Amino acid sequence: MFTSVPVSVYTHPMETFFTFLEKRVDDSSSLLCVGLDPHIPDLAEPTAAAARDFCLNLVKRTAPYAAAFKPNAAFFEVFGAEGWTALKQVIDTIHEESARLGSKIPVILDAKRGDIASTAEAYAISAYETLGADCITLNPYLGLDSIEPFMKYPEKGAFLLCKTSNAGSMDLQNLLTLPTDSHQPMPLYIYVAKLAQQWNTNNNLGIVVGATHPQIMELIRATVPDLWFLSPGVGAQGGELELTLKSGLRADGKGILIPISRALSRAADSGKAAAEIRDQIVNIKREL
Amino acid sequence: MFTSVPVSVYTHPMETFFTFLEKRVDDSSSLLCVGLDPHIPDLAEPTAAAARDFCLNLVKRTAPYAAAFKPNAAFFEVFGAEGWTALKQVIDTIHEESARLGSKIPVILDAKRGDIASTAEAYAISAYETLGADCITLNPYLGLDSIEPFMKYPEKGAFLLCKTSNAGSMDLQNLLTLPTDSHQPMPLYIYVAKLAQQWNTNNNLGIVVGATHPQIMELIRATVPDLWFLSPGVGAQGGELELTLKSGLRADGKGILIPISRALSRAADSGKAAAEIRDQIVNIKREL
Repeated sequence: MFTSVPVSVYTHPMETFFTFLEKRVDDSSSLLCVGLDPHIPDLAEPTAAAARDFCLNLVKRTAPYAAAFKPNAAFFEVFGAEGWTALKQVIDTIHEESARLGSKIPVILDAKRGDIASTAEAYAISAYETLGADCITLNPYLGLDSIEPFMKYPEKGAFLLCKTSNAGSMDLQNLLTLPTDSHQPMPLYIYVAKLAQQWNTNNNLGIVVGATHPQIMELIRATVPDLWFLSPGVGAQGGELELTLKSGLRADGKGILIPISRALSRAADSGKAAAEIRDQIVNIKREL
Repeated sequence: MFTSVPVSVYTHPMETFFTFLEKRVDDSSSLLCVGLDPHIPDLAEPTAAAARDFCLNLVKRTAPYAAAFKPNAAFFEVFGAEGWTALKQVIDTIHEESARLGSKIPVILDAKRGDIASTAEAYAISAYETLGADCITLNPYLGLDSIEPFMKYPEKGAFLLCKTSNAGSMDLQNLLTLPTDSHQPMPLYIYVAKLAQQWNTNNNLGIVVGATHPQIMELIRATVPDLWFLSPGVGAQGGELELTLKSGLRADGKGILIPISRALSRAADSGKAAAEIRDQIVNIKREL
């Protein structure tokens, strides 16, 4: 009897970012990623302290329903050093709420960084060690050596931009490419999805696939059945929750995080709005 | 006689980033861009104050020979809020040195940002207003709507990543693409260079073309004869100054900035080393 050891022990002998995220997804029954985007027009006043308070309020109200939190670096950077202090306080508070709930909630720093080796190392230390984030968004344009300094932390994760939700995503990401190892042309976003799958040797690399292009999401899901997606665009940007889940869920009912920001922060009761979205996700998954 | 007005008055009625940079290039007879990369191993101690002092020393010694300065955001971010304070102090000091020399030296924030509309706007405010930088490096993967919030400041500039100096630049940038408006396949870096040329309607958008690939640089220069290049890779990364200038200079003897960092910061006398590189540039240009 004792010779039977789960295969996963051999595949991932230590905790990886995605085993950590999946535990939280199970604990919360949620795929909701609460976006922390303190846009200046949404703040009580244009200060770093107001940005921090805006986020702390959202964190405290929505934590029970959040599979992850995603603070956006730009809206803190805009306040300079004080903004970075606020960002660190927000991340620390998420860790405290996790401890209170008894279930660790991953913090995905939406920073879309991308630079060469020693610089990428500094960005990795900044995100994972100085700020204490668990995951970061990265840009693939500089190639593998710009991603490796992040991937070598197995318990930390990264989502690589693949097909983004904006109109400008047509400019480069939809280009037809002719990879040397393929006989078929393919859109750049498919090539990037395949690269991410190939690079994901530590179970800590996913991709960003916007919810505004459900047919493309379906195509990418068919190409990389196992990768985790981070899929902005539901709500403010017009994507539909049900269509998104139908297009992007993995066979195991996981594999996609749905970032939502304004629909929560602008709700009369952010906690109630988050609970409703979580419940919608549960219901849609049950029906599929 | 008074009816003869220079064409440039009509083309660029106000100061643009590149008219500003070209004035400094003339004032300094230089194309040297002093890289401010406070790598922790090069510092007296691993603190933001040591990073700041490392940069201030380089700025003061090399300013007379610098066509531009390029602080790298990652090496400041790694120190969190204190690092951002240090970065701001470094940029302020460059502006003060400019005033002392009577010739404004542009500050290029090497941050390689790239995000969608409202987020890109926050990054633009962060770089240009909060920090006071004159220019930034940007990633093209998210397309035009991620670049526009920067380009709408005509007196500020941006360099778009095109062909970077690292090994991983092969992964995406060298892919053959089939643009819908072209009958010929072309490498992605050529497509990006053409996009940058098309997007550069305010005379404030250039491209990053690594000095480690001189033949590719020559090809890009032939494709976009007028665009400014920012060309890292001379020195530490193995590019050669003469070959780089030969491959990348425009017909007017301008059009390329040569970032150099460690060869200056590790020299016994940084000022002397900068003067020598400036003089080499002058001599090579004379011979070409």
